[in-house]
Amino acid sequence: MIYASIITIGDELLIGQVIDTNSAYLAQQLNKAGFIVQCRVAVGDNAAAIKAALDTEKLRSQIILITGGLGPTADDITKPMLCDYFGGKLIVNSEAYDNVKNIITHILKRPFTERNQKQAEVPDVCTVLQNKRGTAPGMVFTQLVNNHHTIFVSMPGVPYEMMGMMELDVIPLLKAQFTTQSIAHRTLVLAGVGESTIADLLTTYEAQLPANTTLAYLPSYGMLRLRLTATHPSEAENNIQIDQLFYTLQQHVQPYLVSITDEPLQNTVAQLLQKNNKTISTAESCTGGYIAHLFTSIEGASSFFEGSIISYSNHAKQSLLQVANQTLIDNGAVSQAVVIQMAKGALLQFNTSYTIAVSGIMGPGGGTPNKPIGTVWICVGSPKSLVAEQFHFRFDRALNIKLTAAAGINMLRKLILAENI
Amino acid sequence: MIYASIITIGDELLIGQVIDTNSAYLAQQLNKAGFIVQCRVAVGDNAAAIKAALDTEKLRSQIILITGGLGPTADDITKPMLCDYFGGKLIVNSEAYDNVKNIITHILKRPFTERNQKQAEVPDVCTVLQNKRGTAPGMVFTQLVNNHHTIFVSMPGVPYEMMGMMELDVIPLLKAQFTTQSIAHRTLVLAGVGESTIADLLTTYEAQLPANTTLAYLPSYGMLRLRLTATHPSEAENNIQIDQLFYTLQQHVQPYLVSITDEPLQNTVAQLLQKNNKTISTAESCTGGYIAHLFTSIEGASSFFEGSIISYSNHAKQSLLQVANQTLIDNGAVSQAVVIQMAKGALLQFNTSYTIAVSGIMGPGGGTPNKPIGTVWICVGSPKSLVAEQFHFRFDRALNIKLTAAAGINMLRKLILAENI
Repeated sequence: MIYASIITIGDELLIGQVIDTNSAYLAQQLNKAGFIVQCRVAVGDNAAAIKAALDTEKLRSQIILITGGLGPTADDITKPMLCDYFGGKLIVNSEAYDNVKNIITHILKRPFTERNQKQAEVPDVCTVLQNKRGTAPGMVFTQLVNNHHTIFVSMPGVPYEMMGMMELDVIPLLKAQFTTQSIAHRTLVLAGVGESTIADLLTTYEAQLPANTTLAYLPSYGMLRLRLTATHPSEAENNIQIDQLFYTLQQHVQPYLVSITDEPLQNTVAQLLQKNNKTISTAESCTGGYIAHLFTSIEGASSFFEGSIISYSNHAKQSLLQVANQTLIDNGAVSQAVVIQMAKGALLQFNTSYTIAVSGIMGPGGGTPNKPIGTVWICVGSPKSLVAEQFHFRFDRALNIKLTAAAGINMLRKLILAENI
Repeated sequence: MIYASIITIGDELLIGQVIDTNSAYLAQQLNKAGFIVQCRVAVGDNAAAIKAALDTEKLRSQIILITGGLGPTADDITKPMLCDYFGGKLIVNSEAYDNVKNIITHILKRPFTERNQKQAEVPDVCTVLQNKRGTAPGMVFTQLVNNHHTIFVSMPGVPYEMMGMMELDVIPLLKAQFTTQSIAHRTLVLAGVGESTIADLLTTYEAQLPANTTLAYLPSYGMLRLRLTATHPSEAENNIQIDQLFYTLQQHVQPYLVSITDEPLQNTVAQLLQKNNKTISTAESCTGGYIAHLFTSIEGASSFFEGSIISYSNHAKQSLLQVANQTLIDNGAVSQAVVIQMAKGALLQFNTSYTIAVSGIMGPGGGTPNKPIGTVWICVGSPKSLVAEQFHFRFDRALNIKLTAAAGINMLRKLILAENI
């Protein structure tokens, strides 16, 4: 097995000003290529801390990926630090120079300064990875550590630039350098069941898993993902073996099974819609466009998504979705009667095969004794049928919005399955 | 100074299946309470790796916060591992037992099993933190390390549960235990300028900053945040000093200044709307509800947000926003003429003070030689004026959607300021 470590650099990571999405992406890519990530470390823009992390990680991993700290300002110290660590001196790289100059003068149309020129400097002891999406070049260093050939790659911290470099240069380079084992994952998604119940159900199954295979439980707010992981020298044999184990797993958890791919619920629904040549719309009050956003984040959404009416105010519910004023007065906006009318209104306005309508109280304001914060009515419908259900979520605003969207999309999934068997 | 380390546990972190948001939250809370985070480490569900992380981190930090691995299944090994590390044995905690039993039997209405009972077990050498939002109790251990009183806190990995425990128990406990310095941050947001240009502009300012103050540059896709950080024994004096430095900083960067608070742009706009007693709506094609979602994620959004029409299809643009068929035929959906009509349609439908209308090509499909992927038209308007602008974004679908939303919200910000001076 070839082990890897990820080091992300930046004071902003240590004060929590940004969420580190780079580490998750790097871990995914390494894993897909057959490398095992041992550890992820985040340190500040501090030479001693970076050095300590390099010293520690190189003792346990042969691949050290580093992001961040390559900008042109005084707080960006990664480049001189690495230059020092590997005993080089900074020289201008002509290809990087041309790239920086082109971006600054032609794309950004800003003056090219001495500071920009410094961005094209690299240690003379590294192999340069040209940045096709930005100014800061990547750098590859090698070192013999305990007789192991160890590779250090420094990449920019801007996610879009780092991702380009990783896909185009780093992964091919690592694959050429190391012989890896196949690491296969299979994940399924369950709903409406607890982690403990499933663990009891799977006691025998888990005990009989071969030594190269592990099962992990990933619970999150009403959903539970189960992940099988297997390693094997042969990718083909690994896939055959894990697919058999995964099939058996599905049989055990059948009553709770939502999806056998590790993808968001809306992607599962999008595939169902496309397969059956159906379309959807949404009528959203409390989710404020979040369900529409989830669907329209899917590539090619225009083939199944028509549009939405975000009727935050009662006036919008009446004028755009034909909710009757008297229904609002009699039942309040968060009610079965109103979400049913909203669903009917959306089906009419958008002429879609399906719709999701939601109305609820997300907090922190707006709760009443009868309808406390977290009360939500959801209606999913088609021209043939309407199904409405009430939910009570008990979290904060952001999470209540997410859970409402997930509940609505799952209700729609069931309706589509029921109508298209 | 009191230093802290954060250790997050879970194989899912090392294969990139989830993004670690816990670390950012924990870092924020520690920082706000006056503790300096030295390092964040993520390791797998592996006793040796957890032990190695504890051994390393306790040498540099007096506070070690740990999340994850406290679930009821076989892959959750944090609790027995910590029990072993601190030389205790597992015993049932009666308060935790009552809590687990109540959640399982009354809230989740599931059978209470032996496995659930195990969730109420804790090492007899820890102080228990009761979990008010879930089943797994938190644990506090103390150890004398190089004559330093060192505190280890283990919390569940579910963010909502961890956050509750952190706010209600952990921060008060740490504040009672340690005397801290004040750490103050001030962040401002710039747009339309490069990091290098600002760094050149601020050379003298940076050189003259006192030793207890640092300036950091945080660039991200068209925006640049500058963060001042200062530490001082006295919170009052620290605030006076940093506010003066922050005021001077604002003067230097005035032409590019968007906001002097580290908050999302939509919050800045929401405050402007509320201050001026104005309302908004949106008419979204390519952003598919994302702008509406950003605004409705703000607490109390109903005071300024009326609703949106997500007109993904051309038919919806015509029927709901009164975009003329001929305009669509002559100019295409991604055009100045269409976004202007969309804006007018939204102002009419929702009767709001302002609106944002967007139409564009987010990719990966849909590009043409004349209108490549990333081409976006945005119109912001009020009954008094309409401003339309074309943009060209060069990223992937997810990022193009985010940047389109940010550009639209920034255009609206300028329009509101221009109309309400």
